[in-house]
Amino acid sequence: MSKTNALFASSASAAFEKGEMPLRKLTETSVAIDIKFSGICHSDIHQVRDEWSEGIFPMVPGHEIVGIVTEVGSAVTKHKVGDRVGIGTFVDSCGKCDPCQRGMENYCRTGNVQTYNGRHYDGEESYGGYAKQIVANQDFVLKVPESIDFAAAAPLLCAGVTVYSPLNHWKVGPGQKVGIMGLGGLGHMAVKFAVAMGAETYVLGHTAAKVEDAKKMGATDYLITDDVKESHSDFFDFILNTTSVDADVDGLLGMLKVGGSLVFVGVSGNKQNFHPFSIITGLKSIGGANTGSIAGTQEMLDFCGEHNIVSDIEMVDASDASTVDAAYARVVNSDVRYRFVIDASTI
Amino acid sequence: MSKTNALFASSASAAFEKGEMPLRKLTETSVAIDIKFSGICHSDIHQVRDEWSEGIFPMVPGHEIVGIVTEVGSAVTKHKVGDRVGIGTFVDSCGKCDPCQRGMENYCRTGNVQTYNGRHYDGEESYGGYAKQIVANQDFVLKVPESIDFAAAAPLLCAGVTVYSPLNHWKVGPGQKVGIMGLGGLGHMAVKFAVAMGAETYVLGHTAAKVEDAKKMGATDYLITDDVKESHSDFFDFILNTTSVDADVDGLLGMLKVGGSLVFVGVSGNKQNFHPFSIITGLKSIGGANTGSIAGTQEMLDFCGEHNIVSDIEMVDASDASTVDAAYARVVNSDVRYRFVIDASTI
Repeated sequence: MSKTNALFASSASAAFEKGEMPLRKLTETSVAIDIKFSGICHSDIHQVRDEWSEGIFPMVPGHEIVGIVTEVGSAVTKHKVGDRVGIGTFVDSCGKCDPCQRGMENYCRTGNVQTYNGRHYDGEESYGGYAKQIVANQDFVLKVPESIDFAAAAPLLCAGVTVYSPLNHWKVGPGQKVGIMGLGGLGHMAVKFAVAMGAETYVLGHTAAKVEDAKKMGATDYLITDDVKESHSDFFDFILNTTSVDADVDGLLGMLKVGGSLVFVGVSGNKQNFHPFSIITGLKSIGGANTGSIAGTQEMLDFCGEHNIVSDIEMVDASDASTVDAAYARVVNSDVRYRFVIDASTI
Repeated sequence: MSKTNALFASSASAAFEKGEMPLRKLTETSVAIDIKFSGICHSDIHQVRDEWSEGIFPMVPGHEIVGIVTEVGSAVTKHKVGDRVGIGTFVDSCGKCDPCQRGMENYCRTGNVQTYNGRHYDGEESYGGYAKQIVANQDFVLKVPESIDFAAAAPLLCAGVTVYSPLNHWKVGPGQKVGIMGLGGLGHMAVKFAVAMGAETYVLGHTAAKVEDAKKMGATDYLITDDVKESHSDFFDFILNTTSVDADVDGLLGMLKVGGSLVFVGVSGNKQNFHPFSIITGLKSIGGANTGSIAGTQEMLDFCGEHNIVSDIEMVDASDASTVDAAYARVVNSDVRYRFVIDASTI
């Protein structure tokens, strides 16, 4: 079996180490990629610390991957050597279930193959992007526009598509007022997308610390949610909740115009509650979305190319593996503006 | 001031009596209508018993009204003497707020004028359909197709549009599986509409007593909700909740396909809860809707004309006013198939 240098955690309590980890065999339909950059997603932390349980160790996290194609299988038609490509949160899906048949592989009912901390359908463990190389099925490899910064493109593969997908699905556009709850890895991408889609975009947060950042990203204003529930009732066409704390659902629904939607991409671990009157009295909806399909992810990347949208990033030099542990500590403290990206050349 | 014979309740604890009640003055833009039939809606009972508080007594309930135009104001262009018309749950709206401007008068933010138990913008009390006559602004008077049974058309004005509107808004149609929760006044109309819209339609209930009725209305099957949550997971494109009991929201969301919606038109008085994972993992939504716009109500009536859809009714002879009290008792016991309609000639 081939190997690649990687950053891995040997257990839920272990610090990151460097070493060789297995690499998938190149098949007729897969491509080999030299990873250039890999984003750090908050879900990496949950998984490497086994907070969602059933973690597969040793674990190589990373599902915000960009790199260059170095080799292609004999039947590969979608990519060629030298292409700038990306890989997101999953690398295979059953192709047969109803969502897969409808091109919604992100909701595969068989269970798609997570980029890491999962198992391929042949039983092999999946290893992610904190590595020098990865081999993946051509159908799950995206094209990254040449025009955008490559490192700052990495977070598009998860944070980007996670917010682009609902903004697009719920048809955010000109003439609308959109509220983005939370200005973190997801939220800052959502602001950029909503602005580029033509919506009047507001950040809804709990501290004014990031007001200037929000405005630089094109937001009209940064509102302290608890202060504006009354003044901004019937105000928004769409609110996207990127936070992972419990939500005042009725209060947020009150801020929506008739016909508006409140959509969750962040979750707390708890049940949320709402009064049916809050939705019935205004044709309102509470929705949720999880990442995006392959076609949707490609559409998002193309949109980024067209609008020159990338993530705001801080680069992680992983020459010393402990810098990744340190970055994790800062993510947990919400102390990153706005996404860490590992320079794979330092792995 | 003009008067009309009516059935009224003098207080929340009083039985119905017959007597003369005020009639609006005919204006340039209003029409006078001889009421022929008036449906009994469950909300009539809540209001006449003052269960929603702030009831205006004496009260003449009734917002499912059909009748014949007998006189028109000088500037009336939409209706003429002899027309078959209907009036639903509201008889005026501000015309200026955002929803009114968007043609969604049912969500008027100023507060539209409820057909009864409300106040016109000039301060006069509004009195409803349990009467011989009503005078209303031409813009809030609907045309009832000649081809459908007139008495059985009355419940379309509230029960009908209340369910047609969300089925239409959420684009129910061929190729979809639709679940209608509850087979009462609202539910039986929803089954007829969903079937006519081309959807494979199921009733979701808690007792098999109405299986044959459901099938006669065109439903594919009548399912006992608690028995089929597992067997029918990922099954429905759309579920409409017409019941007013607390809902197992997560359980119902689990029965929806990816991209599906669970929509409330019935409400319990309590908060409902859901786990965000239930919506996020399948691009699902929880929505709510309240009656329909004037244009939407007319569209519904035209749809009924085209598809020969009316309510299943039991006629109430109100020669003795106590028959209305008796009908109320049966509605509260869910003992009506499926809507009572008062014959106004007996008032």
